Amino acid sequence: MAAWGERLAGVRGVLLDISGVLYDGGEDGGSPIPGSVEAVARLKRSRLKVRFCTNESQKSRGNLVGLLRRLGFDISEGEVTAPAPAASLILKERGLRPHLLVHDGVRSEFDQNDMSNPNCVVIADAGEAFSYQNMNKAFQVLMELENPVLISLGKGRYYKETSGLMLDVGAYTKALEYACGIEAEVVGKPSPEYFRSALKEMAVEAHEAVMIGDDIVGDVGGAQRCGMRALQVRTGKFRPSDERHPEVKADGYVDNLAQAVDLLLQHADK
Amino acid sequence: MAAWGERLAGVRGVLLDISGVLYDGGEDGGSPIPGSVEAVARLKRSRLKVRFCTNESQKSRGNLVGLLRRLGFDISEGEVTAPAPAASLILKERGLRPHLLVHDGVRSEFDQNDMSNPNCVVIADAGEAFSYQNMNKAFQVLMELENPVLISLGKGRYYKETSGLMLDVGAYTKALEYACGIEAEVVGKPSPEYFRSALKEMAVEAHEAVMIGDDIVGDVGGAQRCGMRALQVRTGKFRPSDERHPEVKADGYVDNLAQAVDLLLQHADK
Repeated sequence: MAAWGERLAGVRGVLLDISGVLYDGGEDGGSPIPGSVEAVARLKRSRLKVRFCTNESQKSRGNLVGLLRRLGFDISEGEVTAPAPAASLILKERGLRPHLLVHDGVRSEFDQNDMSNPNCVVIADAGEAFSYQNMNKAFQVLMELENPVLISLGKGRYYKETSGLMLDVGAYTKALEYACGIEAEVVGKPSPEYFRSALKEMAVEAHEAVMIGDDIVGDVGGAQRCGMRALQVRTGKFRPSDERHPEVKADGYVDNLAQAVDLLLQHADK
Repeated sequence: MAAWGERLAGVRGVLLDISGVLYDGGEDGGSPIPGSVEAVARLKRSRLKVRFCTNESQKSRGNLVGLLRRLGFDISEGEVTAPAPAASLILKERGLRPHLLVHDGVRSEFDQNDMSNPNCVVIADAGEAFSYQNMNKAFQVLMELENPVLISLGKGRYYKETSGLMLDVGAYTKALEYACGIEAEVVGKPSPEYFRSALKEMAVEAHEAVMIGDDIVGDVGGAQRCGMRALQVRTGKFRPSDERHPEVKADGYVDNLAQAVDLLLQHADK
């Protein structure tokens, strides 16, 4: 471990994934991953810049931050890059009127968007709202468009809740892509534009930044393709086979965020 | 049309798709496509061999035939190749114990299969039973297997009911494939084994047979890859863009089954 810790030299900014790194979600709100509350506090007391970069698309950014603060985290809305507010801006810029296939908890992020006579579909991690009826409605909207536009908030395969692994938005996006014969546009990790917007908000260049996440493809692979370094934590949806992933190799693997912060404070910014 | 009708010379056997060719399904049971009841009767009075080859996986074969008989069709269970009975046999041969993600209407086809301690998932057109909870359960069963086996009854993208286009099993199969990083085994069209089993039951060679269906990829493309000829009907889920499909070109396009039978009786078996 010490060997690769030196690869963190020169890091000035840290992007933190939230679910599976800070906490594990669950029906009761979820619980912090041991050591993560203190690890975030230590990072924020250091000279390193910190930003949270999530694909959470079930909750509004405000609700997510409220939950994390109740769990003890020092975090504010302005520090969080989240896909729903990013998508809302993109829709306005492009004159797109969305049909939403989303969880009720995130609907408020689209309050400023015109929903009349939809000319695109926005799909997010809708959880129980991924009913056959709702999926079929989104499918029918797409099939009636001459140029169907499908915007997917992330393309995660699954995430971990306290009760077990749960299907994420990426699986349902694949279903609509296949049924309609189209390809979705992704707003969220691993889209390079999304990582770049988070880096810009932190005012740090890609080669000076490290991403810390539990998703070997979405977090680690995506950040590396943008020129960042990336660590995978062995919490959240991490599975031992991730360390033998055929395509993606993290710059380092750590047991949890606390260990990542130990290493960062020892090696970064030198 | 007359020009390509001659391509039907030498046909001795006809495979008929059911949904979208014989009838359009619907909540009220559905309705026959005009002319199809008579067209089936004329075919069966001719010297041509006839077999029905369906991907219907919401209903048991018995229920499907019962419905079609009530709509006026001359059809019996023994004339129908359907994916659920085929899958049930394959499961027994391979010692597979299925977790079923299927419509209640087809569950009886698996009465002879051992369901204890599942070592595979069978997915069919489950309709409203494609809830998030049921999809997530199937996903979790697969993720707990060392060698996950997913058997999909067909891979259709969508089908047409009287109320509109409906998502088919293929879309949900893609979702599980993506989430688990696996590839499903297909029992049903366009699997070559499935077409061959239907040809064998009709005792006709591929080059002597024609498939008639409404699905340019699953019916037409699949049958052609087996060495059969194939006609697409402009009923059911047919869309005008199918006639410009980038990869599949039917041997002929007909307005409906009645027109296909006119041509067959004129040109086949000569």
